[in-house]
Parts: sequence; structure tokens; C-alpha cells
Amino acid sequence: MSLTVAMITVDSTDPLTLGRWWAEQVGGKVVEENDGWFVIVSLPDVPVQLAFQKVGRPTPGKNKMHLDLVAADLDAEVARLEAAGADQVEDHTMESGFRWVTLADPEGNYFDVAQAES
Amino acid sequence: MSLTVAMITVDSTDPLTLGRWWAEQVGGKVVEENDGWFVIVSLPDVPVQLAFQKVGRPTPGKNKMHLDLVAADLDAEVARLEAAGADQVEDHTMESGFRWVTLADPEGNYFDVAQAES
Repeated sequence: MSLTVAMITVDSTDPLTLGRWWAEQVGGKVVEENDGWFVIVSLPDVPVQLAFQKVGRPTPGKNKMHLDLVAADLDAEVARLEAAGADQVEDHTMESGFRWVTLADPEGNYFDVAQAES
Repeated sequence: MSLTVAMITVDSTDPLTLGRWWAEQVGGKVVEENDGWFVIVSLPDVPVQLAFQKVGRPTPGKNKMHLDLVAADLDAEVARLEAAGADQVEDHTMESGFRWVTLADPEGNYFDVAQAES
């Protein structure tokens, strides 16, 4: 058996804009544009790529799958993401002290950012 | 800046069953069960985890984000996945010869499997 996760693809009305936005946020790179219908972003840290594909009408409502990211400095990253156009949705802290923030990207896709363990 | 993709989380009505199903398909491992409300699966090949979180009503319709996997032997993997309970949705071949198959997991989440380049 050999089945490997290679990519996470997001339906988008504007893949080029959204792909460039994500590339900037994660320090990644747009590696393929394909005339804007399928935009691939490589990540600096992991051998998985993000892709953004053009669709007329992305499924509305909360995205059923989401990305979870970790930040070395959560508050600084959240402030930076908000300045870059993300919206903060919720700030969670569990009893254990584990804290993460839910944000929405410019097309409204929710994602979570957690404080990396030091 | 330090913002790293660590996990992909899927809303699910039955995280334990779906998490175990995915772990088996990718040769991964259930590393946390959290009483079935948040199930984490580690992947053998990449430092990204899959998670399955319990929600009452996952957003209906086609999942706006999906996983893209690659297989060393596409036809064999598709046959295996179908025997394991996945449904084949579509078999695509581009003019370039690039071929991938869209399947749905047991909760109806679409994912793609492509032939790995040899």
C-alpha cells in the first residue's frame, strides 16, 4: 500500500489572489499559476502543498475541513494576519491552558492558529 | 514570522470511526482519541496530522477543501479504497495524460487520488 497525502485543495472564486495571500501568510511560494484556475503553493516547512482551484460557487457555510497552524508567537501572528485581511472569529482557551484562535481568510475560510509548544 | 501548517481537521458525526478509517487507508495511526470528540491521526510520510472533530451537523454539500493523495499504483489503490467503503465519483484524465480519481469517504467527503510520477 502506498497512499500519500500530497496536497490540500481549496475551492475558490479567485485562486490567484487567495493563493498569493496564503503563500504570504505561511512564508510559502506560488509554484504554479495555471492561468489562475489551479494555483499551487509550496510550504516552507512541510512536504505538502496548498492548492486553490477555481469554482463558480464554493459550497457556502463553514468549511467542513480546515487548516490548523501553529505559531511561535500566537498574539503577534494573529495581529499580523488581521492586518493582512483575516478576520478573527473566536479566541479559545481550554482548561489545560491550550489556546488557539479561529480566523477567517479573505474568502471566509475558517482556520485555526495555536500557540506552538515551547 | 513563523506560521506552520500542522494539521487538517475534518468535521464529522463519528470521528472515531472516520479517523480509524482514514488511518487504515493511509497507513497512519490514531494517536489521540479524546473520548471520540477529537481524533488525531498521524501520517507515515509527512509531518502533518489529520484530525476528526465531532460536530452535530457538518456543513452539507461538497466539501470546499479536500485532500489530494498520490498512489504508486492508482488502479490498485482505488480498488482497495472501494473495497474499504469509499465510493468512486469520477475518473479524470487530462490531455497531458495526468490521471486522478475522485472518491468519497464513508461520510461523503470527496478526495482525489492521483498516479504518482514514476
